[in-house]
Amino acid sequence: MSTPNTSGPRVGFIGLGAMGHPMAGHLADRGLLAVVGNRTAAKAANFAAAREASAGRDASAIGQPPIRAAATFADFAACDGVVLCVSADADVLENVDGLATHLSPGAIVIDHSTVSVETAREAAKRLAARGIGFLDAPVSGGVEGAKSGKLSIMVGGDEAILERARPVLEAYGARIALMGGTGAGQATKAVNQILVAGINEAVCEGLAFAEKLGLDAERLLPTLMAGAASNWFLDKRGATMLQGEFRPGFKCAHMAKDLRIVQAMAEAAGIRHPVIDRALADYSELEARGDGELDTSALILIKRDSRHTRFA
Amino acid sequence: MSTPNTSGPRVGFIGLGAMGHPMAGHLADRGLLAVVGNRTAAKAANFAAAREASAGRDASAIGQPPIRAAATFADFAACDGVVLCVSADADVLENVDGLATHLSPGAIVIDHSTVSVETAREAAKRLAARGIGFLDAPVSGGVEGAKSGKLSIMVGGDEAILERARPVLEAYGARIALMGGTGAGQATKAVNQILVAGINEAVCEGLAFAEKLGLDAERLLPTLMAGAASNWFLDKRGATMLQGEFRPGFKCAHMAKDLRIVQAMAEAAGIRHPVIDRALADYSELEARGDGELDTSALILIKRDSRHTRFA
Repeated sequence: MSTPNTSGPRVGFIGLGAMGHPMAGHLADRGLLAVVGNRTAAKAANFAAAREASAGRDASAIGQPPIRAAATFADFAACDGVVLCVSADADVLENVDGLATHLSPGAIVIDHSTVSVETAREAAKRLAARGIGFLDAPVSGGVEGAKSGKLSIMVGGDEAILERARPVLEAYGARIALMGGTGAGQATKAVNQILVAGINEAVCEGLAFAEKLGLDAERLLPTLMAGAASNWFLDKRGATMLQGEFRPGFKCAHMAKDLRIVQAMAEAAGIRHPVIDRALADYSELEARGDGELDTSALILIKRDSRHTRFA
Repeated sequence: MSTPNTSGPRVGFIGLGAMGHPMAGHLADRGLLAVVGNRTAAKAANFAAAREASAGRDASAIGQPPIRAAATFADFAACDGVVLCVSADADVLENVDGLATHLSPGAIVIDHSTVSVETAREAAKRLAARGIGFLDAPVSGGVEGAKSGKLSIMVGGDEAILERARPVLEAYGARIALMGGTGAGQATKAVNQILVAGINEAVCEGLAFAEKLGLDAERLLPTLMAGAASNWFLDKRGATMLQGEFRPGFKCAHMAKDLRIVQAMAEAAGIRHPVIDRALADYSELEARGDGELDTSALILIKRDSRHTRFA
C-alpha cells in the first residue's frame, strides 16, 4: 500500500508510543516520513531498522531514501514538518524549544499530544518567533484508530497552515476538523475526555453489576450495543474487561493526567462537573494502587469492590 | 408494508405511550393486532379509528377484522397474547390481575415495561396459577427504535414461551435475546439503564462545557462521534439539546423511577455505584424543579449551572 513520495513534504515524527508508532507507520507507508525520534532512542532505531527491512521487500519503496533515527534535534533540520506525539505539557515545550533552533522558517510543528490550551498557545508563540507554524491537533479513536488510520483529529490553528499539513494528517485521520484558533483543538479534546471518562464510569459500573447478577457476557454485550446504551468503549473494551484483560489501549495514568487539566478548565468555565471529579478520583485511586499502566477499562476492578463506597 | 395475517396469533396491546404507540403500529402492520387498551381510553379509540381509516386505503388489509379499542379486560379474552407497555410496577400487576381472569390457559403476557425483578417474578407467578405464560421483555433503543422497529429486547422467561412469542417481538425488535429465567430481562435492563444514565451524565457535562468554551456545535458533534467518545445518546440528542429542544424521547421522571429500582439492586449486589447515585440525584432535582416530563437530555440544564456544585 506504499505510495512513492517524489514531491510531498518530508516529515519528522517524535514519540513512538502506543499511538505514535502506528501513526508514524502510516506516514512511512505514504513515503512522507524522513526522521523519527523518541525519548528512549532504541525505539527510534528499531522503528527505522524495521522499515528498512520491509522496504527491501517492497518494490514501490525503491528509490526512497531510508528513514533515519534522530540522535539530536539537529537531525530534524531538513524537515518541512515535525509531528509530536508525547505525553506531558513539559515534553511538548521541550521538543518545541529543541525544534525551534533547527527547523527552517516556514516549517510546521503538529502536536498530537493532549495538553492544556495554555501549553498549545505557548508552543505556538515560541515557534512563531522563529517563523515556524504550529497546530494543536489532539486525536481520538484509541490504538484501534491509530492502527487503522481512522482517527478523529481536532485541530486548533491557522487554516492556511492546516491546508499545508493536510497530506500528513490524512495519513491517519478519518476526520480532520478545524475547531478554531490555536488551543481550540485542545479545548475540543477536553470535551472529548469528559465524554470518554464518563462513559468509562458508566460501562464499568454497569458491567460490574452485570457480573454480580450472573448475566452471560456473550448475550449481554451485543444486547446492550443494540440499544440506547451503545458506545465505542463498550464495543472495544467490554469483552476484554470481563475477561480480566487490561493491556492498554489508553493508560489510567494518562487519563488521570488529562482529567487534571480538564478539571481546572471546567472549574474556570463555571459548569457543574461531578463526572470529571468522580473519574479523576477513581483513576487517581488506580494509580495509587499501582495500576496506572493498565488500560482505563481496569476501572471495573474498583467498581467491583463496595467496601469503600461510603467513603469514596 | 402490510403482511396479511391469516393464521398468526391475535394479539392485544395495553399502553399506547411514546414507545407503545409505534410498537402497536408495527403489530397492526403485520396484521397481528386485535385489541388495544390504554388508561386514557380515548387514546385506544383514536388508535383504532386511525388504523381503520388507513386500512380503507390499503389493499393488503382487506379481509382483516378491524382493531377494537378495549373497554374492559374482558375485551382481551380471545387474545392468544397480550403485550404490556406501561410505566410503574403497580400498573403491571394491575393489568396482570385483570388479564389473568379473562385470558385462556396457554395465552402469553409479554411485559415491555421497565420494572423490578421482583415484580416480573410476581407477575409470572400470578399468571402461571391460571396456566398463562409470561415474559419480562424490557426494551432499549428509544422512540427512534420503537418507530423504526429496531429495538433491542431483553427477555426473561421460558425458551418455549419465547419461541411462541417470537412473531410478535420480531414486529419491532432488531435483536431479541433470551437472558435467562423470569426476571433476567429486567436484570439486563437495569444494567442497560446504568449505562444510559451514566452516558447522559457524561454527554451533558461535556456539552455544557463545550458551550462555555464557545465551540461550534456543527463541527464538534461529528468530531466527537468520529472517535472514542462515540455513543447513541450524543448521536440522537446532541444537536437537539444544544438547541434547547427537550421533547421526549425518554422522560426524566421515567429515568428517575428506573434508577430508584436500579440503585436498590446495585446496593444489594455490593458494587460501588456512584454513577447511579449521581444520576438519580440529578433526575430527582429535575423532577423537583418541574422538568420531569422533559427528555433526559434536559440534564444539560442543571450542568450549566455551577452555583450549587459544592452542595450537590
